[in-house]
Amino acid sequence: MRVMGVDPGLTRCGLGAVEGRPGAPLSLVAVGVVRTGADEELGARLVGIEAGIEQWLDDVRPDAVAVERVFSQHNVRTVMGTAQAAGIAVLCAARRGLPVALHTPSEVKAAITGSGTADKKQIGAMVTRLLRLSEMPKPADAADALALAICHVWRGGAQHKLAQAVARAQSRTAQGRTTGKGVAL
Amino acid sequence: MRVMGVDPGLTRCGLGAVEGRPGAPLSLVAVGVVRTGADEELGARLVGIEAGIEQWLDDVRPDAVAVERVFSQHNVRTVMGTAQAAGIAVLCAARRGLPVALHTPSEVKAAITGSGTADKKQIGAMVTRLLRLSEMPKPADAADALALAICHVWRGGAQHKLAQAVARAQSRTAQGRTTGKGVAL
Repeated sequence: MRVMGVDPGLTRCGLGAVEGRPGAPLSLVAVGVVRTGADEELGARLVGIEAGIEQWLDDVRPDAVAVERVFSQHNVRTVMGTAQAAGIAVLCAARRGLPVALHTPSEVKAAITGSGTADKKQIGAMVTRLLRLSEMPKPADAADALALAICHVWRGGAQHKLAQAVARAQSRTAQGRTTGKGVAL
Repeated sequence: MRVMGVDPGLTRCGLGAVEGRPGAPLSLVAVGVVRTGADEELGARLVGIEAGIEQWLDDVRPDAVAVERVFSQHNVRTVMGTAQAAGIAVLCAARRGLPVALHTPSEVKAAITGSGTADKKQIGAMVTRLLRLSEMPKPADAADALALAICHVWRGGAQHKLAQAVARAQSRTAQGRTTGKGVAL
């Protein structure tokens, strides 16, 4: 099972893909970051995030996508951009009929380190060990994306095939739906 | 100048387009709502919103798109979905090189009614009068989308051509940018 993790953000959107299954060694597929400039218009930034994620989906061809669940208690100044970047990741995956899972930061921390309150350094250290890397992936957003993907491999297991079938069916429904508008052009 | 307004939401995303220029009568182009089911997966809902907005952009062919600016002080339970629907509207417009403007609810209220604290009914009444409609557009999300579009026509004016040129240039930059990732497939 190949999973792509997304740690959403407008300035740095962490992306990481791993291959594995519960109870077997994991391997790194790809890790990196899509960046957009803080001085750009919101529209250009969202187009940049979408283009980056689309390129990754083309290259990595994951079986599922795991995105960090964003809460409104997050950093208030950046939470809207983070939510929008997360929405675009979910949209890109769903458009392809890929199953999408949202995991909270504490679910990911607990899965990777055994503690829901682990810090960034601990997450980075465990990701490095679990993927048998020679050094910690940087920046932290990239390591967090790998942690999300690993969390999903371990939580996924048997539920995966069912979720995939449901996602495909829902994607078909959503694309075929009429929009019920009253146009008077 | 033809402007499409978007009152973002996952359950009901209001859309409304008007034609006009500052100091001249306005006319209605289209008004309606894109709906998605609260029981659907987030991915399917976002795909539905995108498909609806794309269809509208194809039909309406606006010169600019005005989207309500979402704040984290909004209804906490729904704010993430609202932010994500807004992000998709901005993305769809920016992908086409259309200029996008974000207006706050109080800017819209002040532009349409003269008061930044006007209620929904007052907004609906003014939209109905300004567009010389026989009845108030329903639901309120549809009327709010028209109010956004009217606000933008009135605020737009001379800034429009400049914004359009900037948006086109930024759209080209964003689409051509490489994502700076380190892939190890």
